[in-house]
Amino acid sequence: MAYERPLISDLHAYAPGEQPADMSRVIKLNTNENPYPPAPEVMAAIHQVSADALRRYPSPSAAGFRGAAAALHGVHADQIIATNGGDELLRMLIQVFAEPGGVIGLSEPTYTLYAVLAASHGAGIAKVERGPGFELPADLAQKWNAAGARIGFVVNPHAPTGRFETPETLARVAREFQGVLVVDEAYVDFAPDSCLSLVRGLAALPNVILLRSMSKGYGLAGLRFGYGIGPSALVAAMHKVRDSYNCDALSQAAATAALQAQAYYLPLHGRVRAERDRLAGALRQRGWKVPDSHTNFILAEPPVDGNFSAFELYGALKLRRILVRYFKYPRLDDKLRITIGTPEQDDRLLAEIDDIVSGSTGAFQPFPSPHTDSRADLRALPGTNPPHPPKLP
Amino acid sequence: MAYERPLISDLHAYAPGEQPADMSRVIKLNTNENPYPPAPEVMAAIHQVSADALRRYPSPSAAGFRGAAAALHGVHADQIIATNGGDELLRMLIQVFAEPGGVIGLSEPTYTLYAVLAASHGAGIAKVERGPGFELPADLAQKWNAAGARIGFVVNPHAPTGRFETPETLARVAREFQGVLVVDEAYVDFAPDSCLSLVRGLAALPNVILLRSMSKGYGLAGLRFGYGIGPSALVAAMHKVRDSYNCDALSQAAATAALQAQAYYLPLHGRVRAERDRLAGALRQRGWKVPDSHTNFILAEPPVDGNFSAFELYGALKLRRILVRYFKYPRLDDKLRITIGTPEQDDRLLAEIDDIVSGSTGAFQPFPSPHTDSRADLRALPGTNPPHPPKLP
Repeated sequence: MAYERPLISDLHAYAPGEQPADMSRVIKLNTNENPYPPAPEVMAAIHQVSADALRRYPSPSAAGFRGAAAALHGVHADQIIATNGGDELLRMLIQVFAEPGGVIGLSEPTYTLYAVLAASHGAGIAKVERGPGFELPADLAQKWNAAGARIGFVVNPHAPTGRFETPETLARVAREFQGVLVVDEAYVDFAPDSCLSLVRGLAALPNVILLRSMSKGYGLAGLRFGYGIGPSALVAAMHKVRDSYNCDALSQAAATAALQAQAYYLPLHGRVRAERDRLAGALRQRGWKVPDSHTNFILAEPPVDGNFSAFELYGALKLRRILVRYFKYPRLDDKLRITIGTPEQDDRLLAEIDDIVSGSTGAFQPFPSPHTDSRADLRALPGTNPPHPPKLP
Repeated sequence: MAYERPLISDLHAYAPGEQPADMSRVIKLNTNENPYPPAPEVMAAIHQVSADALRRYPSPSAAGFRGAAAALHGVHADQIIATNGGDELLRMLIQVFAEPGGVIGLSEPTYTLYAVLAASHGAGIAKVERGPGFELPADLAQKWNAAGARIGFVVNPHAPTGRFETPETLARVAREFQGVLVVDEAYVDFAPDSCLSLVRGLAALPNVILLRSMSKGYGLAGLRFGYGIGPSALVAAMHKVRDSYNCDALSQAAATAALQAQAYYLPLHGRVRAERDRLAGALRQRGWKVPDSHTNFILAEPPVDGNFSAFELYGALKLRRILVRYFKYPRLDDKLRITIGTPEQDDRLLAEIDDIVSGSTGAFQPFPSPHTDSRADLRALPGTNPPHPPKLP
């Protein structure tokens, strides 16, 4: 008999986008990292953390960071909880607000981690399909209520489509929903607005929690730092299940410095947005369908009358050491999710796509490796997903 | 109605030892931090993490660290799981091996976080009292089995007494126990032996997981890095519920460098052990009862015929800005847990104790603060525990 719980034996773990060990040989447009590095102030803050500070336990609640976040967002520090990446916040939200045996509300398609976290908690899912344009259905809250959900998740701007719902739309969902509405704003730094108005000031709603992440907008995916913003009563409940010292001294210092470096980050977000729109336009010129995105990625559908399916392009690009994300899910398996890179990286992507489509066998292959079979080499990349070698034309 | 689950509403969160914001004015002997800073190699490794590395997601499973830990301990990398502090490992262990509604096995007194984690999971506790000398009872496993426990925790060397049980004793418990035995070796670097033999080689047991921490032995409490060592099947089950990227790039680099800096740490552990035995001897000379400790703290009982109880001494020392740990629990409320400091810090502790006992009102008070009421000042320390001002003579 296994020692672990049957629920854990049966669990399918979340599969993150592949992270090749040797990044230098790969153009990585698959996990929505920022193409630009964090602010110099962030690196300085890290280097200023002394050996003596590392010797001691850090602030249990990341008090300094919470003060900085409260000042930036115009809320009280009691409304902030800092977490070891946004993923930890998601896990805590389910632990605090969803009963094992209950359900969480989702709007599909969505970030696949939600369902994994629910399953690992013993909770089910009330799935509501998004509309034809991936918009939120008008009866979302009613359907969640009917299923008995006590917590529901909406990622906005939406992954993996990039669509943006207005704060008014989310406020309506929150008012109609009987449980806690989590608005996952991991990509908000690239959007035209946010849902801050739902948690701030006199019009704040009692059941909305926003998720923020330093991974995308702040170029700090390696730091593992996220935070929640919400009513102090809900935030206090989450602090009760937080690991005693869940954010380390280095990440607290770095995240605080990042929040305070808006002068560096605001133009950087503008650059990513402009490049996003340029890449979307360039693909549309090539016959791809690319809906407007308000994130740092696009969900792009290659021409249906082309010679290459999305999956085949994913595989062909990977052989040329460009990683994009392919999802084998309904409504997504004919598209590629492409993270916005630097203009140089995106130009290379476009050139490789043109080269693949033109039938070349790889004259533009950027990283010739004469001493190895490049396909075997690529199969050995850790975390390769999907598991089978791509079908080649 | 509250939005959170009733279980969370009812939960009493773990209260860590107090962490004053201004460390410079306090001698902190209350949370078992190492008095010595981490190795220079650790700081160098942190400073070598580039902005570009922080931009990207880290290794999801801390592959580099696991390789280093496997080499150090003579196990396979599949037997290692890295976590955001030992606390995250404890939480994951309960999630993976204990059913909500089930029980976890403890031997009292013990680290109070175990019970909080069980409660937050909806699990109960099978408590077994340690013997008169705080030794493990011979029928520990039988009692856990009778209660239906599927996981049990033994901290060894023991907190808060410092007692050490041999690997043979723990192996016997593991063989008799029907569930997973977690040996929490947070303090193992100050002990004469470890339970590595229970997870390594041909004699490895199928149901033992060791917890290791960088917080104490490696002087890295601020880094939040721990790891588990156990059978690969059990470790694989835990990886399934791990947050996708639970250890950040900085802590992975620092922890790896720390493990590889044994030439720095081994003599440092020897210094702490020697100082521990000196402090224990000095208190015994003053009539205190101090059992032998195999950790970096001592559990010390002031003379019962003295004028000051343990709680009064805790309060009086705090007024003199020396923090030690007082536990208001059976068998512990007549004792103080004192972390081993530098010889200078421990000499100051002894001098202040002598001064308090001699009836001084504070001539030796090290940090006079003429402009504030020092008691009000101290009451304002964050996380003060116990919550009420100490009763003063």
